[in-house]
Amino acid sequence: MTEQIGRRVPRKEDRRLLAGHARFGADVQFPRMAHVRVVRSPVAHGTVSRIATEAARAQPGVIDVVTAEDLPADLRIPVRLHVEGTDPGERLQPVLASHTVRYVGEPLAVVAAEDAYLAEDAAELVELEIDELPARLDAGSGDDEVVADFGLGYGDVESAFAGAAHVARLEFSVQRHSGVPLEPRALTVDYVPATGGVEIFGATKVPGFNRRVLAQLLDVDESVIHLHAVDAGGGFGVRGEFYPEDFLVPWLARRLRRPVSWVEDRAEHLVAVNHSRQQRHRLEVAAAGDGTILGLRDDVWHDNGAYVRTHGVIVPELTLSMLPGPYRVPAYSGRVRVALTNKTPCGTYRAPGRFEGTAAREQLLDLVAAELGMDRVELRRRNLLTPGELPHTRAMHTLGTELVLDSGDYPRLLDRALDTVDELGWRELVARGRAQGRLLGLGLSLFLEKSGLGPHDTADVEITSTGRVRVHSGGTSLGQGIETVLAQIVADEFGVSVDRVDVVNGDTTLQPFGTGSWASRSTVVAGSAVRGAGRAVALRVRELGAEVLEAAPEDVELADGVVRVRGAATARALDLAEVWLAAQPGSPWLRDGEPAGLSARHRFAVDRMTYPYGAHVCVVEVDPGSGGVTVLRYLVAYEVGRAVNPALVEGQLRGGVAQGVGGALLEEFRYDESGQPQCTTFMDYLMPTASEVPAVEIVLCEDAPATTNPLGARGAGEGGLTGAGAAVASAVSDAIGRPAMTGLPLDPGSVLAALGTVTGPAAASADGIP
Amino acid sequence: MTEQIGRRVPRKEDRRLLAGHARFGADVQFPRMAHVRVVRSPVAHGTVSRIATEAARAQPGVIDVVTAEDLPADLRIPVRLHVEGTDPGERLQPVLASHTVRYVGEPLAVVAAEDAYLAEDAAELVELEIDELPARLDAGSGDDEVVADFGLGYGDVESAFAGAAHVARLEFSVQRHSGVPLEPRALTVDYVPATGGVEIFGATKVPGFNRRVLAQLLDVDESVIHLHAVDAGGGFGVRGEFYPEDFLVPWLARRLRRPVSWVEDRAEHLVAVNHSRQQRHRLEVAAAGDGTILGLRDDVWHDNGAYVRTHGVIVPELTLSMLPGPYRVPAYSGRVRVALTNKTPCGTYRAPGRFEGTAAREQLLDLVAAELGMDRVELRRRNLLTPGELPHTRAMHTLGTELVLDSGDYPRLLDRALDTVDELGWRELVARGRAQGRLLGLGLSLFLEKSGLGPHDTADVEITSTGRVRVHSGGTSLGQGIETVLAQIVADEFGVSVDRVDVVNGDTTLQPFGTGSWASRSTVVAGSAVRGAGRAVALRVRELGAEVLEAAPEDVELADGVVRVRGAATARALDLAEVWLAAQPGSPWLRDGEPAGLSARHRFAVDRMTYPYGAHVCVVEVDPGSGGVTVLRYLVAYEVGRAVNPALVEGQLRGGVAQGVGGALLEEFRYDESGQPQCTTFMDYLMPTASEVPAVEIVLCEDAPATTNPLGARGAGEGGLTGAGAAVASAVSDAIGRPAMTGLPLDPGSVLAALGTVTGPAAASADGIP
Repeated sequence: MTEQIGRRVPRKEDRRLLAGHARFGADVQFPRMAHVRVVRSPVAHGTVSRIATEAARAQPGVIDVVTAEDLPADLRIPVRLHVEGTDPGERLQPVLASHTVRYVGEPLAVVAAEDAYLAEDAAELVELEIDELPARLDAGSGDDEVVADFGLGYGDVESAFAGAAHVARLEFSVQRHSGVPLEPRALTVDYVPATGGVEIFGATKVPGFNRRVLAQLLDVDESVIHLHAVDAGGGFGVRGEFYPEDFLVPWLARRLRRPVSWVEDRAEHLVAVNHSRQQRHRLEVAAAGDGTILGLRDDVWHDNGAYVRTHGVIVPELTLSMLPGPYRVPAYSGRVRVALTNKTPCGTYRAPGRFEGTAAREQLLDLVAAELGMDRVELRRRNLLTPGELPHTRAMHTLGTELVLDSGDYPRLLDRALDTVDELGWRELVARGRAQGRLLGLGLSLFLEKSGLGPHDTADVEITSTGRVRVHSGGTSLGQGIETVLAQIVADEFGVSVDRVDVVNGDTTLQPFGTGSWASRSTVVAGSAVRGAGRAVALRVRELGAEVLEAAPEDVELADGVVRVRGAATARALDLAEVWLAAQPGSPWLRDGEPAGLSARHRFAVDRMTYPYGAHVCVVEVDPGSGGVTVLRYLVAYEVGRAVNPALVEGQLRGGVAQGVGGALLEEFRYDESGQPQCTTFMDYLMPTASEVPAVEIVLCEDAPATTNPLGARGAGEGGLTGAGAAVASAVSDAIGRPAMTGLPLDPGSVLAALGTVTGPAAASADGIP
Repeated sequence: MTEQIGRRVPRKEDRRLLAGHARFGADVQFPRMAHVRVVRSPVAHGTVSRIATEAARAQPGVIDVVTAEDLPADLRIPVRLHVEGTDPGERLQPVLASHTVRYVGEPLAVVAAEDAYLAEDAAELVELEIDELPARLDAGSGDDEVVADFGLGYGDVESAFAGAAHVARLEFSVQRHSGVPLEPRALTVDYVPATGGVEIFGATKVPGFNRRVLAQLLDVDESVIHLHAVDAGGGFGVRGEFYPEDFLVPWLARRLRRPVSWVEDRAEHLVAVNHSRQQRHRLEVAAAGDGTILGLRDDVWHDNGAYVRTHGVIVPELTLSMLPGPYRVPAYSGRVRVALTNKTPCGTYRAPGRFEGTAAREQLLDLVAAELGMDRVELRRRNLLTPGELPHTRAMHTLGTELVLDSGDYPRLLDRALDTVDELGWRELVARGRAQGRLLGLGLSLFLEKSGLGPHDTADVEITSTGRVRVHSGGTSLGQGIETVLAQIVADEFGVSVDRVDVVNGDTTLQPFGTGSWASRSTVVAGSAVRGAGRAVALRVRELGAEVLEAAPEDVELADGVVRVRGAATARALDLAEVWLAAQPGSPWLRDGEPAGLSARHRFAVDRMTYPYGAHVCVVEVDPGSGGVTVLRYLVAYEVGRAVNPALVEGQLRGGVAQGVGGALLEEFRYDESGQPQCTTFMDYLMPTASEVPAVEIVLCEDAPATTNPLGARGAGEGGLTGAGAAVASAVSDAIGRPAMTGLPLDPGSVLAALGTVTGPAAASADGIP
């Protein structure tokens, strides 16, 4: 069997997804299942004086109506990702609000009924008496509740700025938007009378953490909580975190002693799931006359919404820590103030902190280039870290790890991206368009990503009765294809095809030590764990096979799923099923004290991340009449270290671009002055469609294997998004002849405003892409 | 915490059973579940010319009707327990009969419908055209199909008989009866679309074997078949074997791609579940003039019904191998012919082979005593093996093991039984009754049992987040209390109470190497595995605890669920939850390469059985008018080696006596001359009730710990039954003044027939119990 790693293997997941055999949270049904509807706050800020549930209770088919009074006192959802030195204090989210509500959509009560329609109807009969209070809606307005105020940095920034030939300043804002998976959240929970435990279907990101939190909140042993693997229609960081419903639904199942189902509708999703991205940056860069960066400063206001959820303040920490990007920045200082507002609480959304920071920094660099009259590319090339400078340590911590850029060749990646742009003739395309009087622009951004966050993940590999290879991993299948990737990794240990590998992700019984799929970590960390476990099993297969074949272990080889005596004239060989049989209890080949079966558990631990990097290039056209922006061409160059499955990496990158275009141009959660969300349907929250997202050219680089893991892999989950806001902004500014834009989204209004000062098409584009 | 082993701990199972939280096979329900009804042969023997399913298919709500034509060709259920040198040939049971039917009740078709009533109604519309053939109904009639003919024995039997002062001969028959659990069989099977696998609820005896057979018959990997632990309303050997339905229900779930439920009704159970016991013995014993046994012969016809099911011919093998019992038998020869008849196929029923053989042998000894004019007890005492003669090897194999009686003090047990009978005044009771002209008799039997069959069982023990102890064992909970027993065993390793232990038995995912609960083996074999696993975990707890406490491992102790530095003045101590936390991935105490968590798997392997033994004593009264027998008093003395829970051992023995009384007096599957079963309801198949079963005195002996396992335990599952037929027969013969009875059941007809020759009450009782 040819090596599976590196091949464009079709996704194992697709067979069941395309055949309708997938199982999503809402597909799991039980008899006597109660359906719940969450009653949510209709006001952004207020004091709850009364919740009257009598009318709802009186409805036929209503089983129960629950408010905070029915719950144990002061249940709050803890932080999963702590940032040292910060403390959410009283601002952890309660599972049900009691005295005060702090955003529209905050859970206040739960109605359980015989079906979902009855529950929804009855929920509308729950009477809420809430005395409205003024709503805080803007971070940095001067009237702020700052829940965290911290800085990151290194070097002598003051001196850098003091001695600089040039200082450029940019204010840049990124709008509130978030991950909007195809499938809203859904939870089905069965109750186990004998243990008081629960079987949970619907957790899709960090099942181990969610199990632990739920056990603590329910005050039960973790072992009576079983989170099952289900399919998920997208995660993007928002789905699968521990939300109020992740407590309420299991708690109700225990209270009612029956199965309970909850399925989020789209309107709920848009106000309930973590928002993200909303930041205001005030950046300054100190540069020498030749464009060499001497120092960098950023002052960030981060709008975190009403509560500190499971991510704590990790998103702005990531913004700060990753802001210097792939550049040589001798001195850096970033400060963030995390403000609470009366809007939906925030968390991570794919490329959290980096999408925002990259857009701000790259626009700042465009501005510097413009102000110095330099070519934008040349400015970047001059400041990119070179391979000889790696590994490069920045005296900062992020996500609890030291920030060490492990390996890479940033200039080479830039060259590869631009060479491809040349081949594709995009400069000519822009030139032709401009010659026709159209507002075309070419944008470029470079970015640094992070991936492969530890501290550890655990995988089990075992051979089954027919010689299949089974993997129990801690990741979760969010649509990213992790089952296929893990199958490829383990297949090579046995020389089999991925068709002979079965992967179960995220089942807390099958893999109690799994940590989850997030932060572009599963291929790197879970993949390395799977590789370690597979290697251990393969060793055992060779050893036991050698015994059965009466050969020395060193004389046998394992290839094509068969153990053979190397170079033996006779056809002495055992397939995996035969070796499995020899490993069963009672087998004459299995000695006392030897574990039965062919299985191994491996924990891969790593204390640093690995840092992928890339470039986005795009061509946009601006409609001068409407201010509308059309993305005509798009290219992502990405260094992945080692692509286990290039097709899946490309898919990840293309999907990221789609979301990046949405974030750059369309998506925004807007609120009115009273804190009422204005985007609770897809009529108002504009998702990119196939019309808005162009074909994406991919330059997939495997020039710099990661040094932090045996696969050499870097995560690929986020790089399609990280540089997108920056590249589109760069292209729009190029198209309309502005040195830099001042924020996202580049919606018609903001583009028209920027266009108002333009005298002619693309006046400033001389310093553009070569 | 005081030691849990040896205590009368209340059963852990009872909390859920009494609170209605138990989960039996039929309690497991899924949406869209299809319900099946098996169409069974109405004739005992015949050629199937046509099965017309059209009318059934046309019924509203009918989903499918399946006959053998729809199945893969020639699916037959394999033998689980092979007897060397025998071969079932063509007589393995097919899952659905095609050309020929061989007993009334044989499955011919299966109807699946939207509910069980529709399925049953439609099943009656399946038209069967069967040409009847003559039915074979008696084994040893001269027209026999003998599927196995084999012998066991040792010593020079010919010489023993040639030189004997006395030879006694007895023909003794035991009627066809079987285990009739409170809960008939039930299976619920869910289909897993993504894997094509099945989740099975209802397997209750040997889940590992059943999974393997099902995987082979379905031609799937074992890993996609998951047998779940459920409660069961009794097993007794019959429930949980692999029957045709154990294939048909999962196969239908896969065919229909939906959940399928099958619940056996009582009439089905009485013709479908394994029958047992039916044997005809021709015994001869050679004795010296003083009653010393010189040699023993038996020639057995074993009626096995229509097919060889999973037990193969192990039941008659057990009859032969165990026939010499606890006695010094210098030369022995047994032969059995296993005949196939057109009746329900046979298998094991609690104390298989031994109930029959013990009844035959003990009546033979009564006969010898009568013929030699000796006291029945004295004859036995003279021939019992003494402690000095143990271990005692008989040159036979049984259940694949060498027959070595491990340890014991048989005479002491007899003394203890008789001392108790004296204390209870039963001899006086009999004497008083007789003085009133009543037909009272005192019966005695001695028996040897076997238990603790290997070759192995595997258990996992782990500590959970709140410091509970969890056990995943291979046994199954049949009502015998094995969860409590295993909890007691493991609790002592940590010094905790059984309330802190959770036991899950028989889940093939949680414990893939479990072998099951049968043959009085679970306490011995699974218990020893649990003890080994618990000990390994306790060692790890002490080691890790010592590290956290910064002490040497030898300086810490584990008691009351707490690790403490021994004799430390300071209160340095960790409870199990704290040690668990220290063992989690990411803990500073967990080193690279060390497995996370606190868990261990242990396989206990043993190549010999351990042999419990006991005595039954009872007082009966015979109604000379009706021939009815009433059991007035009952005593079981039993050597259990070590009683993990004396209350449960006593419960096992009392339950056994109830079934033994049923087998001795009431229960019989009768057939008419055409092979039609005559006992398909409880009106005709007479189960003992509280009116028929007296209180049972127990003399529980722990005088001779078993030498084959670290617990010193012997199984207790069957000893309440083994000697019952023998003791009741002995008492009835004593009551009516016959030297011996010639068979079971001792129903009114047979007792009246025996009474016909009696001249006065209890004429022969002078040689009775002292």
